[in-house]
Amino acid sequence: MSKVVHGGNLDELSRTFKLNKESLIDFSANINPLGINKKVKDAIINALEEVERYPDITYFNLKYGISDFEGVNYEDLVLGNGAAEVIFNLVRSIKPKKVLIPAPTFGEYEEAALSINSSIEYYYLKEENNWIIDEDIINHINEDIDMVFICNPNNPTGILTEKEVIINIAKKALSTNTILAIDESFLDFIRDGENYSVINLLKEYNNIFIIKSMTKLFAIPGIRIGYGMCENKEIIKNMELVSVPWNINILAEKATLEAIKDKEYINRTISYIQKEKNYLYKELNKFNDIKVFNPSVNFIMFKIINNIDLKLELMKENIIIRSCNNYIGLDESYYRVAVRTREENDNLIMALKKVIN
Amino acid sequence: MSKVVHGGNLDELSRTFKLNKESLIDFSANINPLGINKKVKDAIINALEEVERYPDITYFNLKYGISDFEGVNYEDLVLGNGAAEVIFNLVRSIKPKKVLIPAPTFGEYEEAALSINSSIEYYYLKEENNWIIDEDIINHINEDIDMVFICNPNNPTGILTEKEVIINIAKKALSTNTILAIDESFLDFIRDGENYSVINLLKEYNNIFIIKSMTKLFAIPGIRIGYGMCENKEIIKNMELVSVPWNINILAEKATLEAIKDKEYINRTISYIQKEKNYLYKELNKFNDIKVFNPSVNFIMFKIINNIDLKLELMKENIIIRSCNNYIGLDESYYRVAVRTREENDNLIMALKKVIN
Repeated sequence: MSKVVHGGNLDELSRTFKLNKESLIDFSANINPLGINKKVKDAIINALEEVERYPDITYFNLKYGISDFEGVNYEDLVLGNGAAEVIFNLVRSIKPKKVLIPAPTFGEYEEAALSINSSIEYYYLKEENNWIIDEDIINHINEDIDMVFICNPNNPTGILTEKEVIINIAKKALSTNTILAIDESFLDFIRDGENYSVINLLKEYNNIFIIKSMTKLFAIPGIRIGYGMCENKEIIKNMELVSVPWNINILAEKATLEAIKDKEYINRTISYIQKEKNYLYKELNKFNDIKVFNPSVNFIMFKIINNIDLKLELMKENIIIRSCNNYIGLDESYYRVAVRTREENDNLIMALKKVIN
Repeated sequence: MSKVVHGGNLDELSRTFKLNKESLIDFSANINPLGINKKVKDAIINALEEVERYPDITYFNLKYGISDFEGVNYEDLVLGNGAAEVIFNLVRSIKPKKVLIPAPTFGEYEEAALSINSSIEYYYLKEENNWIIDEDIINHINEDIDMVFICNPNNPTGILTEKEVIINIAKKALSTNTILAIDESFLDFIRDGENYSVINLLKEYNNIFIIKSMTKLFAIPGIRIGYGMCENKEIIKNMELVSVPWNINILAEKATLEAIKDKEYINRTISYIQKEKNYLYKELNKFNDIKVFNPSVNFIMFKIINNIDLKLELMKENIIIRSCNNYIGLDESYYRVAVRTREENDNLIMALKKVIN
């Protein structure tokens, strides 16, 4: 159904290139390398009998659980069939005439805006500035801009935006009647993520809307769950109006309720990512032909200096990486790889040695 | 998230009335009483490992399977996270200024239309006409009406609309540039359902859009799957534009692929429903205080002559039925019950005897 090429599309690639899907290592989707928590899998199996019933249309337990997990009010929460639906429903409810989107960034903001015929202004990030979103973006926010999207840390660059910068963007946006949508889907992978989150600013800034995906952290992208948080009652009300009833399936509901209980899994994830991210970054940096951008999170963007089609070459080694050629603001020399297990990361490095040298 | 009260909301009722959910018999949702097919459950369990991957964003296998099941072209099919999402996405893509909706009918057509601020004209069905949708509705279709919804058989009345009537509605709608959305979600429960389906008219009438739910027939409302069929390329293209990527979760995908294989289960369902529907209809007819409308399918609407709050009284007997008081065109004297297993149907009849007499 999609117009944008995404990572994680192993089915499509396997069909097109006649690959054996089972033997592929997927570095193209930014999923927790620890894999699905066994308790979460058990929760899905235990919920199988309930598939014969409709989900609770109010999602009372799920919303209660997530609001507790995030420390936000129950009524400030909206659920989505993946973060993608949260983004689409946000845009459907705001109906922005014009949206400001940094480039490069996650493709769904653009896709959602185009689905309701919003016009888009791109704010181009600069490689020489290490792809940082700084306060210069404030100069591009004016009365004509109804919405701004910021992905923090940004996808695919992996670069964090400082909280003071976000606050100053929010202040300016408040003065121009602009909604600031902050996608914090990857912040939970970072040890000091709470220092970057604007969740404690929702009360003060009712123009801030926070987007969260649960599928990356808990390694459950197949079952789709995401949510949004905002203290602006009108936005929440309008999002409920455009929401499809029963949009979260009952297995995603039960899986999420189990997943958010396990703080130990989250802490283990953060430690693991920290270590493996540093390892993979160091190893990638050893290649003369690769320029690696300093990552903050569970994926790493790099640029290849020679003319090799790295995605195609690595595919021959059963390794799938994300080409960034369809990100606005990037081209075919940029790639993104997820941080995987040590064994998988070593496989990537070995394959890169073979392919590049 | 919903504004409309629906059947199947056992969670809400259990919380509000302090009921033990496990002991309730649910006659309020029109789900196949045979329950989930064991093979479908096994398919979900087998797919659990795949939850760590994104669904195939193109849904190639699922679309191929359903197009084969329905005998329609692959490219004439759109998928939804339940039929509810198909209805919402259809309305989002057509953007009708004005919609004609029979009353009473399934609440989602209205809810979808209101979500994009369409205005609604109701075509009131008449009890003295046994709630039949006849050709009189054609007089209400004109250039101002951008869309008409027809649920066939209609929910909650259970009344079928003749195919010739649908054809004449489609003809008139073609002349007024009106899209005719036919919801055939319950036709698969009927032995001669294909005599009522307009699926073979899609080629001739590119203003017809057929909506199908899979969750009722296959008893999987918890995992959400529905689809639409239409030969109008522009509608399909616009629906893809408004569709959220990865909207079908991977477990719903695998469950559906397994479910549509089992023709024996479908045939068994049709026979079972035929028999139990007749039994329940006959038993309900024995009550002097109940006027039963002749059902065609797996649910029965009736009217109670005395002033009893039947839903509340039956709830005390652990039986949940659907009050029709929030259907436009009906009031609190109308109720709908699903056709369940013989034992459950007998429980309903016994409870009714206790409560009414």
